[in-house]
Amino acid sequence: MTAPTDPNEDQPLRPLLARIWRDYLSHHRGALFLSMLCAALAGGLSALTLKLLEPAINGLFLQQNAPMKLWGFIDIAPGQALVVIPLTIVAVAVVWTLSSLGQAALVNRLGHGIVGDIQVRLFGAMIRADLARLRSQHSGAFVSSVLFDANLVREAFTNGVVNYTQHSLTLLFVILSMVFIDWRLTLIVLLGVPLISLVMRRFSRRTKKATTGAMRETETLSTALMENLDGVRLIKIENREAAEEARVGEVVARRQRHVIKSADSRAFAGPFSNLVAMIVVAAVMAYAGWRAQAGDMSVGAFAAFIGLLMAAGQSLRQVTNLQTVMTEGLTAARRLFAALDIEPEIREAADA
Amino acid sequence: MTAPTDPNEDQPLRPLLARIWRDYLSHHRGALFLSMLCAALAGGLSALTLKLLEPAINGLFLQQNAPMKLWGFIDIAPGQALVVIPLTIVAVAVVWTLSSLGQAALVNRLGHGIVGDIQVRLFGAMIRADLARLRSQHSGAFVSSVLFDANLVREAFTNGVVNYTQHSLTLLFVILSMVFIDWRLTLIVLLGVPLISLVMRRFSRRTKKATTGAMRETETLSTALMENLDGVRLIKIENREAAEEARVGEVVARRQRHVIKSADSRAFAGPFSNLVAMIVVAAVMAYAGWRAQAGDMSVGAFAAFIGLLMAAGQSLRQVTNLQTVMTEGLTAARRLFAALDIEPEIREAADA
Repeated sequence: MTAPTDPNEDQPLRPLLARIWRDYLSHHRGALFLSMLCAALAGGLSALTLKLLEPAINGLFLQQNAPMKLWGFIDIAPGQALVVIPLTIVAVAVVWTLSSLGQAALVNRLGHGIVGDIQVRLFGAMIRADLARLRSQHSGAFVSSVLFDANLVREAFTNGVVNYTQHSLTLLFVILSMVFIDWRLTLIVLLGVPLISLVMRRFSRRTKKATTGAMRETETLSTALMENLDGVRLIKIENREAAEEARVGEVVARRQRHVIKSADSRAFAGPFSNLVAMIVVAAVMAYAGWRAQAGDMSVGAFAAFIGLLMAAGQSLRQVTNLQTVMTEGLTAARRLFAALDIEPEIREAADA
Repeated sequence: MTAPTDPNEDQPLRPLLARIWRDYLSHHRGALFLSMLCAALAGGLSALTLKLLEPAINGLFLQQNAPMKLWGFIDIAPGQALVVIPLTIVAVAVVWTLSSLGQAALVNRLGHGIVGDIQVRLFGAMIRADLARLRSQHSGAFVSSVLFDANLVREAFTNGVVNYTQHSLTLLFVILSMVFIDWRLTLIVLLGVPLISLVMRRFSRRTKKATTGAMRETETLSTALMENLDGVRLIKIENREAAEEARVGEVVARRQRHVIKSADSRAFAGPFSNLVAMIVVAAVMAYAGWRAQAGDMSVGAFAAFIGLLMAAGQSLRQVTNLQTVMTEGLTAARRLFAALDIEPEIREAADA
């Protein structure tokens, strides 16, 4: 297998990832695996809590005095359900909270530790570079790469990777729990996913295009303002204040059209995905009600299925967001490594 | 009544709000009220959809062949529930989506229209000011106030106000629906709100403190980097590279401790509020199960109550967020009005 060669990238992906692993992540292997373990635990427990809704609702509202089982192996004596089930929910939630806190604390220490590492190395590389190179680069650009790029790399390779683990495992466990409740219904719902993701992708493409347009017009406006302020003496001498105001008014109006388009497409995504969610809930409700007539689905199973479905949607959104975070992180890593690879000045060259 | 006099503000609040209303918002009165109407409709429909869960679940899973009523006045013939209830949910969701889209579109047009208005006026005030004042202000600061401050004012006075309307109405309708299902349970839940908000406020105060510390240390780091780059020639002559690297390493390490503290307190808020939510769900479940034993609460009522509770939590978060948005907007409005109130240059003064 060869590394993918994207014409837009100036460096292949595989060696870049290998270098990030070798120089930074591998030094913190223990913390990284421990935080991924916490993430996996949190993902599994989310699905477990929602799955608990099925016996909880059935046990508390339908067969109150029958003996029941939690997750198929914990027996609950008749009449105890009212106390045992809520306490089980709280106990699972406490473990979930502890593993989430552990994950966050580990990821923060790991990630910001790597940022500090990069920052000191960058400074070292910069201060040892030769003066000609130092003069050719604006010091503001250097400070921005030390502060901003290092954080983008952290975001992608610690937060990103660990969150990805958590949400893909949540997604896996949630879908397994859904299959366990009703595999036919799960199959129907899963068939709808490509359709929804197609619509969402078109939305995000439109948003991206509109946002790019808005940014370009903002730059035009900012240039127009700067030019006018720099040439204000001439404008005053020639009495052109009103004319310049009208010209800036036009630039403002053109920018506004782009900004509104961009704001619209961002604001519209929420209501549309909510509509899709409600249609799915209604369809699942109709199917579940129909199966319930034959006694094949309980109300607890329905409630658990809806809860799992919502959790799946949320995790799916997080997993798809990761792509943006990773792209930004990789671009920042390329810039950073280019700065780190500056050859140190050769001290003795002048005396040779 | 007098306007509140906060020693930290250099201008009382009431005339500021009056001026924003008179100069900007009142010109778009129609669009503003229409968008608030859309927001109110969306808020009401959210509560209505969740309230629908009660008859839906009871009708589809418990008394499938009994005649039933939706919202107390729409009769559904026996056996029709399987079709009518899901279709009603979709119909309500479509109206909700339309009113949300309408609200977003109106708010975007209104808000960005006001931004354009402010931008052109600011430019007009600036270009007519006398040259001494123009020279005393950095043109970058002017461009930033035209682009950035104007947007903060928009955020606060269109998006903020309309979202506030939507979420406070959602909160109101949702709590009313909860009271309608079980007023005792609602009372118990509401008594818990001050406790939770106390914990959340302490959290946000800690986050703010840690973030301020992190920002201060970031500035220190950025200054240290700048100084070193500016004095790099001297550092090279005196061979102090390693010593400077160690000094910057210390600054980086100190900044890291603050940044980790700030990242932790932000990351911990999510798991903690989730734990609180799960404890509330468990408590409501125990109470509802106990009432169900006496036949006083149905499983549909329980599901609707939990759904309403989650919606209330979400709206409450949005409403409390508004305070930050409004504070930022008011500060930006003060800066903007100061720039707008610059006296125009008196053209004929030299000839007098």
